[in-house]
Amino acid sequence: MDYAKESLKLHYEWRGKLDIVPKMPVTNKEELSLAYTPGVAQPCLEIQKDPDKSYELTGRWNTVAVVTDGTAVLGLGDIGPEAGMPVMEGKCVLFHAFGGVNAVPLCIRSKDPDAIVETVSLLAGSFGGINLEDISAPRCFEIESRLKERCDIPIFHDDQHGTAVVVAAALLNALKIVDKKIGDIKVVTQGAGAAGVAIIRLLTALGLNHVILCDRHGAIYEGRSDLNPAKEELARFTNREKKTGSLAEVLRGADVFIGVSAPDSVTREMVRSMAPKAILFPMANPVPEIMPDLAHDAGAAVVGTGRSDFPNQINNVLAFPGIFRGALDVRARDINDEMKLAAAFALAGLVGDKLAPGYILPAAFDPRVCPAVSEAVAKAARKTGVARI
Amino acid sequence: MDYAKESLKLHYEWRGKLDIVPKMPVTNKEELSLAYTPGVAQPCLEIQKDPDKSYELTGRWNTVAVVTDGTAVLGLGDIGPEAGMPVMEGKCVLFHAFGGVNAVPLCIRSKDPDAIVETVSLLAGSFGGINLEDISAPRCFEIESRLKERCDIPIFHDDQHGTAVVVAAALLNALKIVDKKIGDIKVVTQGAGAAGVAIIRLLTALGLNHVILCDRHGAIYEGRSDLNPAKEELARFTNREKKTGSLAEVLRGADVFIGVSAPDSVTREMVRSMAPKAILFPMANPVPEIMPDLAHDAGAAVVGTGRSDFPNQINNVLAFPGIFRGALDVRARDINDEMKLAAAFALAGLVGDKLAPGYILPAAFDPRVCPAVSEAVAKAARKTGVARI
Repeated sequence: MDYAKESLKLHYEWRGKLDIVPKMPVTNKEELSLAYTPGVAQPCLEIQKDPDKSYELTGRWNTVAVVTDGTAVLGLGDIGPEAGMPVMEGKCVLFHAFGGVNAVPLCIRSKDPDAIVETVSLLAGSFGGINLEDISAPRCFEIESRLKERCDIPIFHDDQHGTAVVVAAALLNALKIVDKKIGDIKVVTQGAGAAGVAIIRLLTALGLNHVILCDRHGAIYEGRSDLNPAKEELARFTNREKKTGSLAEVLRGADVFIGVSAPDSVTREMVRSMAPKAILFPMANPVPEIMPDLAHDAGAAVVGTGRSDFPNQINNVLAFPGIFRGALDVRARDINDEMKLAAAFALAGLVGDKLAPGYILPAAFDPRVCPAVSEAVAKAARKTGVARI
Repeated sequence: MDYAKESLKLHYEWRGKLDIVPKMPVTNKEELSLAYTPGVAQPCLEIQKDPDKSYELTGRWNTVAVVTDGTAVLGLGDIGPEAGMPVMEGKCVLFHAFGGVNAVPLCIRSKDPDAIVETVSLLAGSFGGINLEDISAPRCFEIESRLKERCDIPIFHDDQHGTAVVVAAALLNALKIVDKKIGDIKVVTQGAGAAGVAIIRLLTALGLNHVILCDRHGAIYEGRSDLNPAKEELARFTNREKKTGSLAEVLRGADVFIGVSAPDSVTREMVRSMAPKAILFPMANPVPEIMPDLAHDAGAAVVGTGRSDFPNQINNVLAFPGIFRGALDVRARDINDEMKLAAAFALAGLVGDKLAPGYILPAAFDPRVCPAVSEAVAKAARKTGVARI
């Protein structure tokens, strides 16, 4: 199927992918007086006395905003806020379909981090959480961390953390297959955007000791003169041997390759230069860094991509609905590393005895996914003290 | 029925009055690829080429935000943003039930007009219109007028203009009953908040020449030392005789009283002092300035209130769903005075031959209301050049 053509046609028919519908009828005076004035004054007064009652008397407990500035939409780049909205609406569709979460698509007409932080902070009383989406790096790091400080609800940049959680789950299971330990392996990643940085941070929290991050100029090392603050920070705890050189050079002997960057940038020769039983997650979309058959041909033990037409699809939809469902269920103030790791372990655990080189992650439509992830996330939130109920 | 108690109970059961639901199923890979990636890239690119395509390829054509800062919620005053949300959700319910409009409730955690204007402006690409709600005067005037300058979508403060439109419709019909002309009558209003000010402005646009506005200190006249800028501006074109004194004093000989302020502030003696065949719209809620039976007893010819348990309910629900429906239908850039007057005439016209002292407005649930208002508003938008289609 020509997805582009068919999707465009459907978008003209749908004219928006969401409807915002009342839960109750308003067909007579009495119903109007209960859903609206004068009856509605009473819940207002209850919330005035205790603002946390907004979680019981309004939809806040189950509503998130999906917010973009349109600067890094899919692989399309900076296409503008309005042009990002079909993706935001789509994300809201997935929030409801997979997590039962009401999600509101919002685009912001500014690229200024100050303005974005201010706008989102001022809206925080309307929502139980904020999903940031398709905001370009390195601005996304600053925006997220400032929002986390200012807001009393979870702030979650899915391009970073959703991807990181699913990669972590995939790696946990792939390591079982090749019988290696995360503390011992050498990982090389390519792409220092939102996802690349978050993946390294989460894997480090999981116990990874040896990782080299490459951008388009090759290995990132402490002291390289052209690093932005986010990369500088990463250089302080990655690549401790300060290796320099191209991706091909640093990939020699590595156990794992993770790509979130450029199509066709990994060759069979490069895979052959890796350690035995290599794991590759070439996730560039739609064309991965190396096609799975080529990687296997060159000796790779496990390969996962972003594509649904190959085994081991590394798809954010496995993570964000359950992560938000769990965070909302316990009215979490934050989504912290412990909650993300809990989500990764829960996802990995669902594979169970069926674990195989071609089955390291549950399928996107596996109905066990959201309940398992949300339960683990809620438990971790309680354990780390960020749950309010 | 004890509306307060019953409504609170229902709000605990509803836990939010809205659901945000997908228009399409997402139950398999193919559906996912059409509503989300990779298919969704194509509508994004179309909007990048022409941002106005967001009205065809996303829900913008039919989505408004209902925005408050929580400073003037119902008659409860400044109860805070979160506490205003049950009203905002209720308003969104009415938008959908009466106008078929998708409405998103938003509260802003700031009382600073600069911050509110900035926040709403930056979100304008997400919506086809903005309904401001329960923002205190005089801040609401500045916020609305600055937003109207900055935004390319309609900005409408319903507490002002919704009320003004329905009062204008009611007055047009009441004047037919008493056989007086709007250019000749003397009107006295009480309450210089959002509604009071907007009513006077719209009636002036309708041809009213003689009006005296009272606040809690009595008649407002040019040069009174304690006026805020909004009242100063009004003083320049109202009360041209510069009458001073209390409400009771200036009401003598008046043809019309319009109250949006204080319960029980008008006595039978005051009504008796008015001109023959007096019209009274005492709209303070829930207790009007004078009860209808007392006003009639003192000789009033027509009485309308905000209450649903008396004839002639002056209820905003008669106006805002149709006004936004009409504005959205033609992708209006603004809701201007001509559109508001068109709405008032359309509403008044629906009463037709059945016009009587106890029937000057259609009922809230009259199914003819929204279509008639929206058609008139769309026509006026086209006529005044603010329609985009």
